[in-house]
Amino acid sequence: MKTKYEIYPIGWIRKSNDSSVIELEEEYLEALDGAQGFSHLIVLYWFHENDRPELRKTMKVHPRKNKNNPLTGIFATHSPLRPNLIALCYCKVLQIEGNRIYIDEIDAYDGSPVIDIKAYIPIDKLAKDEIRVPGWV
Amino acid sequence: MKTKYEIYPIGWIRKSNDSSVIELEEEYLEALDGAQGFSHLIVLYWFHENDRPELRKTMKVHPRKNKNNPLTGIFATHSPLRPNLIALCYCKVLQIEGNRIYIDEIDAYDGSPVIDIKAYIPIDKLAKDEIRVPGWV
Repeated sequence: MKTKYEIYPIGWIRKSNDSSVIELEEEYLEALDGAQGFSHLIVLYWFHENDRPELRKTMKVHPRKNKNNPLTGIFATHSPLRPNLIALCYCKVLQIEGNRIYIDEIDAYDGSPVIDIKAYIPIDKLAKDEIRVPGWV
Repeated sequence: MKTKYEIYPIGWIRKSNDSSVIELEEEYLEALDGAQGFSHLIVLYWFHENDRPELRKTMKVHPRKNKNNPLTGIFATHSPLRPNLIALCYCKVLQIEGNRIYIDEIDAYDGSPVIDIKAYIPIDKLAKDEIRVPGWV
């Protein structure tokens, strides 16, 4: 049998015209203690709308859905079509009120399941190394 | 019933004294096309050694296992104890040979399951915004 792991929503993305909020499940409230010390958080959410076996088999896409960008392996992109439907966003924290984290913006649909939140800590080597990206970026 | 999602290993971390390698499952080889254009990749792996229900309920830790660091909610850390055991690393790519990605280093055990690989693309707002982190960082 294929090895598999299970993940559970820890919260949900709530978007309206004038706000983007991560609404944490109440049971995880304590796990947010100390997040106030960070200006930015890394938010992982689930591309739930693409959770179909055939879509998860997609190997290549035109990045940013632009046919002018070369057909590229999904591991060289942030495409929402991928074997494990994990999305990664860097969010600026505006305010934290109880289980609600108000953020500047997030490129996600309203109702998307949040699966992890991590401190954003700048990485030394990324500041020092020369960063190379292909032309389509 | 609790909502859950399934994830599958796409590869494995292979470490020896003199190399760190991501060994991709052959079925995903095509999804790596274009990764050569990036100097760095984001690697998500699974903290498989902590995949026990009671450990996944951990809410707070002393960051970096240092008792001098204040007890902190795990969403304000990168602790390997968390509800969904997803680890995030930024890796410098040394070489890609077939399904083997040679990287500079990765803070993971040999044999850890890799669950996603994403292009590392610098984020404008992280370069422009003032980044704030708490004292223990």
